[in-house]
Formats: sequence, structure tokens, C-alpha cells
Amino acid sequence: MIPSLESGVGESGLSEEDHRHLARAIELGRAGWGRVHPNPMVGAVVVRDGVVLGEGHHEVLGGAHAEVAALSVAGDARGATLYTSLEPCRHHGRTPPCTEAVHAAGVARVVFWAADPGAEAGGGGELLRKRGVIVDGPFGRREEWRAENPFFFHDPDSARPCVALKLAVSFDGRIAPAGGRRVWLTGPESRREVHRLRAGFDAILVGRRTWEADDPRLTVRGSITPRVAPVPVLLDRQGRATAELRALGEATGATGIVATSSERAAALQQRLGALADVLAVPATPHGLDLRTLLASLHERGVTRVLCEGGGRLAASLLSARLVDRIYLFVAPVFIGRGGVPAFPLDAADSGPEAAAAHPARRTRDPVHTGESRSRAEGWHSCADPVRFGNDTLIVLDRSA
Amino acid sequence: MIPSLESGVGESGLSEEDHRHLARAIELGRAGWGRVHPNPMVGAVVVRDGVVLGEGHHEVLGGAHAEVAALSVAGDARGATLYTSLEPCRHHGRTPPCTEAVHAAGVARVVFWAADPGAEAGGGGELLRKRGVIVDGPFGRREEWRAENPFFFHDPDSARPCVALKLAVSFDGRIAPAGGRRVWLTGPESRREVHRLRAGFDAILVGRRTWEADDPRLTVRGSITPRVAPVPVLLDRQGRATAELRALGEATGATGIVATSSERAAALQQRLGALADVLAVPATPHGLDLRTLLASLHERGVTRVLCEGGGRLAASLLSARLVDRIYLFVAPVFIGRGGVPAFPLDAADSGPEAAAAHPARRTRDPVHTGESRSRAEGWHSCADPVRFGNDTLIVLDRSA
Repeated sequence: MIPSLESGVGESGLSEEDHRHLARAIELGRAGWGRVHPNPMVGAVVVRDGVVLGEGHHEVLGGAHAEVAALSVAGDARGATLYTSLEPCRHHGRTPPCTEAVHAAGVARVVFWAADPGAEAGGGGELLRKRGVIVDGPFGRREEWRAENPFFFHDPDSARPCVALKLAVSFDGRIAPAGGRRVWLTGPESRREVHRLRAGFDAILVGRRTWEADDPRLTVRGSITPRVAPVPVLLDRQGRATAELRALGEATGATGIVATSSERAAALQQRLGALADVLAVPATPHGLDLRTLLASLHERGVTRVLCEGGGRLAASLLSARLVDRIYLFVAPVFIGRGGVPAFPLDAADSGPEAAAAHPARRTRDPVHTGESRSRAEGWHSCADPVRFGNDTLIVLDRSA
Repeated sequence: MIPSLESGVGESGLSEEDHRHLARAIELGRAGWGRVHPNPMVGAVVVRDGVVLGEGHHEVLGGAHAEVAALSVAGDARGATLYTSLEPCRHHGRTPPCTEAVHAAGVARVVFWAADPGAEAGGGGELLRKRGVIVDGPFGRREEWRAENPFFFHDPDSARPCVALKLAVSFDGRIAPAGGRRVWLTGPESRREVHRLRAGFDAILVGRRTWEADDPRLTVRGSITPRVAPVPVLLDRQGRATAELRALGEATGATGIVATSSERAAALQQRLGALADVLAVPATPHGLDLRTLLASLHERGVTRVLCEGGGRLAASLLSARLVDRIYLFVAPVFIGRGGVPAFPLDAADSGPEAAAAHPARRTRDPVHTGESRSRAEGWHSCADPVRFGNDTLIVLDRSA
């Protein structure tokens, strides 16, 4: 998962050692998943004369930033180099500016990875430079920064949450055997990872049938306790949700949201009472208008949504280009004839993305043409694949 | 790809250092892919007092075995430890027994990973023990050894070649958009890897339509030049292959094989003349009898076959439980509505494997049940997934 940083290495003459510490800082930052939102995950390492004096990461929203945490472990950091996965902030937010802490600590050099895009927080590198600190950074590309911090680098102009899709498929691309009988394709290791992932989101979005069949609680029951539990959002175009929704409200401690069509909203809210907030969304021939749904969630402060299915909902989101990231779990299971494809054939029109693959060339020698696949195709692998038990997790980000 | 060796570490008290050198030996062995068949791929490391004196691997059939290669680099290996990924052989084959070379070199200790299952070659560990060498091994499980050397550990009683299946699918489990228009799903890095894989096989098996559409040459055009080029085997039930087969014969230097139904074989052979060997195979309602086809190839000395499609052929092989390994390339492409599933819905009955997935339990808390997926399900991930460009390669072995 550690980015190559190669672009940076060449440009600035980062040493092997610099590279290693920066990679370590990025790795440290990941421990903030589910705890620091809406802040980014950041890690930092303080090094002097090749000796690591301190490591730290941003642990929880409102707590010390990574730079301050690492400096505090280091103690005397005069003349040291500070490696951090994000440009030190220069603004008074929930905590004082990191630039001040860095300067006050007598740090001689700062090496940072990602540029802070914030209008207020950004520019810390330049500020430190002006104060006489040697500053190297940023390194890498925005696409790589986004791979680490998908929410922080989500386009703020999109006026919708960052949307991730979780899929579990058999190796022949199906989600259930003929007849739709439900099966667990993935093993317990993958399911634990799903709980870890959930912790990083504001909301979990599922279709009603998936919700009923899979996991009525939609809670986070893994190794990470999220700072704020994600809100369950149920897509229920027909407005059929009933009192069984009780589980939704009970388990999360927060009131769940049920999205239904505008004409059914009032009746549904009346029936559900305090069990859930009903969100009225315009209906289209293909289902609820997902763009409007996401905009409404955004207005309520939901900035990142994990969609866990079902297949129609997933296909619709993909087709509307409303998905930013895909967590694809591939299970070592062959389903075969008549199995339900990952996305049902009657899903909404797949739109322009279907044309994204390369038209086959009738070349006699496709391997040696040296052609490189364009990133404009839509998706790219944004991290190394990981094995969870017998399953494989592939993480894809939408290309800019 | 380096196995855990954990079972071994616990049992024998292998040190961290032992573990590292053994893993290195396994890694070295991989360079023999496409060159050493029918021998296994083997690597070896000679170490004394923590210093690596020599490394080696079995480079080519008939050449030095890994142990001898490493000892020869090491020079004086008296008192050293020899790490090897396979039990040293004790028989006179194409080369003298490794046990003699190891003993003659004055090696004090041998640490080996996989047991040699051969009736003649096996037992080298015990022989060396009797001669006073300290011998530690084997370690790990047959399943892990097979992951590294799938052909060498293929069940000799199966009376058929070891069969691997190469698949390339979109992340929504499809191989082509609606209408079946052919596309390149995977990028050039994956296609290079396919050429590398091909080098390790005796034969490449494809259906006629796939052959026509994809790659009429079926040759190995990658980084490895195989010792013997794989024979192209074309499945052509209808006996429609024509003179365009010329490309088959020309490119490989070897005469290709065309398998067709028994009743069409004679006519087809007459039409093709010297362009290809026609193999008569009984037809079933679902296509040619694949078990008989594989048995016939086996009789001709083909011990390992890579099937590259199409989907029907792949599904039929899978359904008949004739596939030992799957190379699954997952491309970051969304095909969507109407796309052709990885295996067509009208493929042969998927048989008992479709029932392999877990019936879903209506448990409220599937994550915490601690249930572990049985390996009896059919497949397991036998190596870490690897990213090739934007694609991901997942390697699955059939569970015993």
C-alpha cells in the first residue's frame, strides 16, 4: 500500500532513508481510520542522525496532529528531520498550527508527502521555508494521496459524499447461485475487514432486500470503534419498510435513514414514527434518483458513504458515475451456470462506461506494441491487492 | 509468494535466519519456470557463520541441480549449512545424486523445504542423516509445495495433465460488453505475464472461436524462452478448422493439435494435411469429452496444459473438476448491463461445485461466530495476489 514516491525521489534527491521514513509516516497515519474524520489520516516520524526519536499519528479528531504527537515522543528535536505524510497545517483549527510546533521544536528539516489542499490549512510548507526550515515536499501525485485519504481528497465541488462500493463476488463474477439462494461467498477474515472499513464511513447505504437478507444491524463490530458510528441508510423505493426496522435504530444508537420516493415518504414516516428518518427522493423509471439522494445526505453532513449493495443499487451508482472507490472482494468460489451476475442484467443502463474497455485490436502481436492503457478508462488499482484468508481484496479508485 | 513455513518453525525450532534463507531458496527456484520441466523448480543457498557463500537454482533440464549449483558458487562449503527448497535427490538421473555432492562438499547441515515424493529420488534427507549430516526438513504442507511446483506435485494417478485455466474478467465479472464485441480487458503488463506463464506449459488449449479472435499464434513471446515451446491445442468440435491453421504450425515450429469429434476427425485430417495433428475425441451433448481429450494428451506426453478459453470450454473444464489451478486476472473495467458473464449461462451444468459456497445463515452476527471456511469448498488462494499494472492476478489452486 506504500506508494512509490518515485516521482519525488527523482525530483528532489530524496535519499533511501528519506524514502523509508516517509513511507513509515504514511503507514503510521493509517491507524487513524475511523477516528479522525473529517481530518485526514496523518503519520509522522522524527529522525536525527539516522536515529528515530519519535513516531506519532493523528489518533482522534480534536487530539494532537501527527507532527505534534511525534515531536512530543521525541522530546528534544532540535536539528532533527520531521517526516510527515501531509503538509503541516498553518491554521488554528481544533488545535494550534503544526507549523508553530515544528518551528518551536527547532526542527531543521521537514519532509512531507501530500500537499494540504485546504485554503486555510494549506501552505504550511512555504511558511516553514520562510522561517528558515529546510522543506522538501510535496511528493507523489494527487491520485496517490487520494488512495490514502479518499475522503480528504474528495472533490469538494462534487456537492455529494465520497461514495465507496463494497462488492463480494465469486471468481466467476457471480454473487449467488441459480435461484438467488443467498450464500456467504467470503470468509470471516474478509467480513472482519468489512467491519474495519465500515468504521471509516459516515453512512452505510444498502437496498432494502439486501438489508433484510444480509445484516440487519449494519453496525461496526470489528477491531476499530469508530468515533461516530455510521448512520444506516436504507433505500426503500416502495416504502415497504416496517417495524422490523427497529433493529436499525436500536443497534446504531443513531436514528437510521430510510430513503423512499417522494409520494410515499409521508405515509412511511407516519408508519415508522421515531424508528427512522424518512428521506423523500424523486423516483425515476430506474429507481430513486441517486444523485438527489446523495445530495440530500451531503446536506445532512454525510461526507462519505459505503454502499454494500445489492447489485442493482451498485450497478445504478456505477452507471451514474457516482462511485469513487470500489472494495472488491473476490472469493475462491465457482458458482457457475445460472448464477446471479455481480450486477443483474436488468440494472440501469451502464452508460458510457461500458465502452471503456479497449476495442480488441486484431493485431498479431498485442504484447509487443508497448501500448499503455489510458487512465481515462475510468478505474485504476490504487493499492496492492491484499489476501484476507482465501479471499482477495482489490481496491479501485475512479480515475480523475 | 513466500510460504509461511510456520508449521515448520514451530516444530523444529528453525531460527529467523533459517527461515529467511529457506524463503530465499524458494524464491531462487522460481527462475526455473519454463526451463526445467519435467523437473521441479528448486533453489539453494549455502551459508556459513551467517555469511552467504553461494546461491543457485536449477536453471535448465539436464543442467546442475540447485544444490550443486549453489555449492559450486560457494567453493569451500565445509561445515556450512545448505538451504534448499526441495529434498536433495539421491538417484542417478540426468545428473549424479545431490546427496553425494552435498556429502562430498562437507556440508554440516541441510535444511530443506518440500519432501521429494519420487520413489527413486526421494529419501535423500534420510540418507544424508545416516551419513552424519544434520538434516532439518521437510517443512510446510504439500499444498504449499504444490503452490510453488504445481506440476511436480500433481497427482500422478490422475492419468491426465495438470490443467491450469487463465481467465481475464472485468470487476463486474464479465469478459465482453453486450453483443460480445471483443475487448482487451487487461493491460500490457498482464499480457506479458500471460506470456511468462505460457512458457511453463507443455500445451496451450483454446476453443476455436477464441483462437480465431484472440491470438492465432499461441506462442510464447515474453521474457522467458521456454526450453520446449508449448504445443497449441485447438478444440474444434465441428471440425471447421481450415488452412488459416497455417499460422499455428508456422509460429510454434511444432505441429499443433486439433481435437475434434471422432466422426469428423478423418475428414478434418485430410483437409489439414500436415498443418496439424487431428485428435479424435468422443462427443457428448455438451461438447467433446474433455476427460478423454486430456487423457489422450497425457498419453502423448503432455503433462501440463494452460487453457486460455473461451468461456464455455473453461466452464466445462471447471464443472468436470478437471482444473487444478486458476490464474484469474481482474481488470479495473466495468462492463455492466448485458455484458457477457465470465462463463456463459448456457455452459455445461456446474455440478456439485455450485453448492460449494456457504448457505447463508440468518445469523444476526456472522462476524463473531468464528466460523472458519472449510478448504473442502474446492479452491484456495495459493499465493499472494499480484498487481500487474492496473490489473490484479489471483492464483487459486484446487483444494485436495
